[in-house]
Amino acid sequence: MKRYEALADDLAASIRAGVLRAGDRLPSVRQASTSRGVSPSTVFQAYYLLEARGLIRARERSGYYVTAAERPLPPEPEALPADDAPGEPISERIFSVLESSMTRDVVPLGSAFPSPLLFPLGRLAKVMAATVPRMDPWSAVDELSPGNARLRRQIALRYLGDGLHVHADEIVVTNGALEALNLCLAAVARPGDAVVVESPAFYAALQSIERNGMTAIPVQTHPRDGIDLEALERAVARHRPKACWLMTSFQNPLGSLMPEAKKRQLVELLARHEVALIEDDVYGELYFGSRRPAPAKAYDTKGLVMHCSSFSKCLAPGYRIGWAAPGRYAKAVARLKLTTTLAASAPAQATLVAYLEKGGYDKHLRQLRQTLAAAQNEMMQAIARYFPAGTRATRPLGGYFLWVELPEEVDALAIHRLALSHGISVAPGPIFSAHARVANCLRLNYGHGWDTRIENAVRTLGRLAGA
Amino acid sequence: MKRYEALADDLAASIRAGVLRAGDRLPSVRQASTSRGVSPSTVFQAYYLLEARGLIRARERSGYYVTAAERPLPPEPEALPADDAPGEPISERIFSVLESSMTRDVVPLGSAFPSPLLFPLGRLAKVMAATVPRMDPWSAVDELSPGNARLRRQIALRYLGDGLHVHADEIVVTNGALEALNLCLAAVARPGDAVVVESPAFYAALQSIERNGMTAIPVQTHPRDGIDLEALERAVARHRPKACWLMTSFQNPLGSLMPEAKKRQLVELLARHEVALIEDDVYGELYFGSRRPAPAKAYDTKGLVMHCSSFSKCLAPGYRIGWAAPGRYAKAVARLKLTTTLAASAPAQATLVAYLEKGGYDKHLRQLRQTLAAAQNEMMQAIARYFPAGTRATRPLGGYFLWVELPEEVDALAIHRLALSHGISVAPGPIFSAHARVANCLRLNYGHGWDTRIENAVRTLGRLAGA
Repeated sequence: MKRYEALADDLAASIRAGVLRAGDRLPSVRQASTSRGVSPSTVFQAYYLLEARGLIRARERSGYYVTAAERPLPPEPEALPADDAPGEPISERIFSVLESSMTRDVVPLGSAFPSPLLFPLGRLAKVMAATVPRMDPWSAVDELSPGNARLRRQIALRYLGDGLHVHADEIVVTNGALEALNLCLAAVARPGDAVVVESPAFYAALQSIERNGMTAIPVQTHPRDGIDLEALERAVARHRPKACWLMTSFQNPLGSLMPEAKKRQLVELLARHEVALIEDDVYGELYFGSRRPAPAKAYDTKGLVMHCSSFSKCLAPGYRIGWAAPGRYAKAVARLKLTTTLAASAPAQATLVAYLEKGGYDKHLRQLRQTLAAAQNEMMQAIARYFPAGTRATRPLGGYFLWVELPEEVDALAIHRLALSHGISVAPGPIFSAHARVANCLRLNYGHGWDTRIENAVRTLGRLAGA
Repeated sequence: MKRYEALADDLAASIRAGVLRAGDRLPSVRQASTSRGVSPSTVFQAYYLLEARGLIRARERSGYYVTAAERPLPPEPEALPADDAPGEPISERIFSVLESSMTRDVVPLGSAFPSPLLFPLGRLAKVMAATVPRMDPWSAVDELSPGNARLRRQIALRYLGDGLHVHADEIVVTNGALEALNLCLAAVARPGDAVVVESPAFYAALQSIERNGMTAIPVQTHPRDGIDLEALERAVARHRPKACWLMTSFQNPLGSLMPEAKKRQLVELLARHEVALIEDDVYGELYFGSRRPAPAKAYDTKGLVMHCSSFSKCLAPGYRIGWAAPGRYAKAVARLKLTTTLAASAPAQATLVAYLEKGGYDKHLRQLRQTLAAAQNEMMQAIARYFPAGTRATRPLGGYFLWVELPEEVDALAIHRLALSHGISVAPGPIFSAHARVANCLRLNYGHGWDTRIENAVRTLGRLAGA
C-alpha cells in the first residue's frame, strides 16, 4: 500500500469511528504534512482519494470538510448461508424481469448500465468521423478473429501499464465482454459439465450456463471480499467443475472486491485442480481507490485464467467491443469467435484504436470514477434516510451497483412490480440466484449520477419497502 | 416470368446452341421489337440482362454482339452420388486450410469475400461521420436485442419490395449473418440432434453443427438447382432432423439456385415433417437475372422458415450487421442474441439506417451485380482456356463462386498447398464435405473483378492441375 493510501485509510477509519464528524474541517495540507511527517503531495493525494470516495468535500478557499451524513449508513450484509447445491433454472424469471424493465421512461435503478451521458461519446464520434474514411478497405475482409492487431496491441499496453504481461497474440477481440465470456465458457466446458458461480451471481452467467446445458454450482460469496475459498474447495472436490465463472473485482450484483492475496489463493486453488477461471473483469477500471485492483490473471502461471473485459462500461457503450485474454485457450477462443460471429465491427475497432493511441482515456476514467464514487455516497445516504430499519447495504470500492438487503418479510419481486408501476426499475435479488435468501434483496444502480429524480425514486422505493 | 426474361432466355439458348456465335451482331432493338412483336423497352431490358450475364456486349454506336468465347465453356458438373450418411468431423481440416490462406498477399481465389473495393465504403464512411455525432446517447444502452428499430423497419421494407410480408418485430439484428444462422440453429436444435445440410455445404455450417455436438446429415445437391428433394425426404424420414440449414439461392460453394417451384416444395415437405428451415440467403441480392429470386421464406405459412441474411456481402463488409427473420422462433432468437452478444454495434446500425433511408442502395447493387456477372464470364473463359481437359464448372446465375470439378486424379488439397506456394489461395473441395467425391474439386472466387493478376493466377492453377 502506498503512503497516501495508508493515510486515506486512516482518515476514513476516523470518520467511520466518529472521531471526525460530518461538517468537521480536516487539517490543512500543510498542517497534516507536518503532523503526519509526510509530504504535502501525499496529503493531497489522500484527500483527493477520500473526496473520490465521497467521504470529504472541498469548499472553495476554505479547505476539506467531512461530508455530512445525516444518519449512520446501513450496516453491510453478510454472505448468504452456505449452499453449493446446483441451482434451479431461473433463465425464464430473468428474461421476464429484464424485458419488463427495458423502457426508456423508467428511473433506471435496475439498469445494468451506467448513464451513457458519462462517456465521451461526442469525442468518440469525432474520432470515428476522422478515422473511418481513412480505413484500409481490406481490413474489412482480412481482419477477422482474433481482431484488429493495433487494438490488440493497445489492450496489451494497458495490461502492461497495470503490471500484467499479456501478449497481443493472446488477445481475442469480441462483441463486448459478454461474447468473450460465452466463448471462454464454450472453450472449456461441454453440455452436462458443472461450472462454479458466485452466490448471488451475474444473471447472464446463470443464463449462459443454463442455455448450454451445463450445471451452475453456486458458492457462498461474501459481499465485501468475494467468493469463500473454503466453500469453493469443497464445491470443486464434490462437483469437479470444468470452470469457475467469477467477477473478482466489484462483483455484479454484490460489489465485492477480492483482496489481491485472496485472488492469488484462488488462482493457486484452481491450478491445483486444473480448473479454468473465466474472470469477468468489466468493472475493474471503475475503482475508487488509488489504483486498478490486480485481476486474478496477474497470478496465473499455468494459463488457466481467461480474463475478459470490454470498453462498454468505461468508454464506448454500444460499440460492442470487448476482449478475452484466454491464456492457454487463446487459439480455441479465436476459432470459436471465427465460427460464431466471425469478427467485431471494423469501424468500431478502428475508432477505439485511434482514440487509445491519441491518449485521454485515463483522464476520462478519472472523471468517471469520481462521478461514480460521489453518486454512491449520495445513494448510501439516501438509503440511510429513506429505507426501513433493518436494511443492510454493501459499500463497494468501485463499480456502480449497491446490493441492498431489505427486512426479511419484504418481497423483492413484488417491489420490482410495484416500482415499475411508479416508473422505477430495480433488479430484484431472485434474478441473481435461485437461493431463497435473496428474496428480500435488490441491486440498485448508482451509475446515473445524482439528481432529484433519482433521489425521489429512492425515497419511493423506501416507502414501497415499508419504511 | 416477365416478357423480357423470356426473350433473354430464348436468345441465351440460341447462343449456347451455337445458332448465334461469338462475334455475331444481334438484331437492333427496333428490328427485334418488330420481329418478336414486343416493345422496344422489352428488347432493351433483355439485352441489358444478357450483357449482365456476360453473353453479349455493346459496342459504341454499333449495337450488341455475342461475346467472343475462344473455346466452348467447360460442361457443368453433376450432383455428387447419393450419400446421406452422417459426415465425419472436418472442422480441423477447415481451420487448417482457412488459416493458411488468411494473408493479404495472395491472389484471393479461395477467399470467402468479394473485393471490398466493390463497395461504397467511402460513401458509408461519410454517412457514418454525419450520423454518429447525432446519435441518441441512450440508444447505446437501450437498443439491445432485437436491435435498432429503424434498421429493422428498413429491412422489413426491403422484404416488402421483394413481395414478402415480414414484420419489423420478427427481425433480429445480429453480428452478421453468421451469428444469425448460429442463433437460429441454437433455437431449434440441441446437442445430439441431426441437422440436414447440402452436400457439399458451406463449411461454417459444418463447423457450427460439429461445435454444438449435433450431427450433420449431408443430402445430395445438384450444382444447378440445389438440394434433391427426394433424397431430402428420405433423410428426414431416416434421421428425424430438427432443422435443415440450406442456401437456397447461389449456394456456397456450388452456386446452385433452387427454382421457386422447388423452394415451395421444399417448404411444404419440411412443414409436413415439422422441420425448421434455417435459410442462409446472404447472396440473394447478387442475382444476374432480372429480379431477386424469392427465398423459401416466401412460401412459409407455418413460421418454420428462419431467413438469415446480412449487409456484409452486398453493402458494408466489416460492419458486421446481419439479421434473422426467424418466424415462430423470433422471440427465442432475440433472447439468445441478448444472452450471447447482447447487441450489434450501435454506430454501424445507425449508419446503415441513414444510408438505407437516403436511398442509393439499389443503384449500388445494380453496379455490383454487373461487375460480378462480367467477372464470372471472364473466369469461365479463362477456365476454358487454361484448365485441363475433363474439367467441369458450374455457371451460377448469381453470387461470386464457381465450383470446379477437375479430372478425377487431381488432389485439390495438394493444389491448395501448391497454389499457396505460388501466392494463390483456393478453397479445396474437402473443406465443404467429408465426401470423397469432392477431393478433385475447387471453389473459385470471381468477386475481385478481373485483371492480369487474376488471369495469371487462373493460368497457374490450370498448370498445377495438369493442363
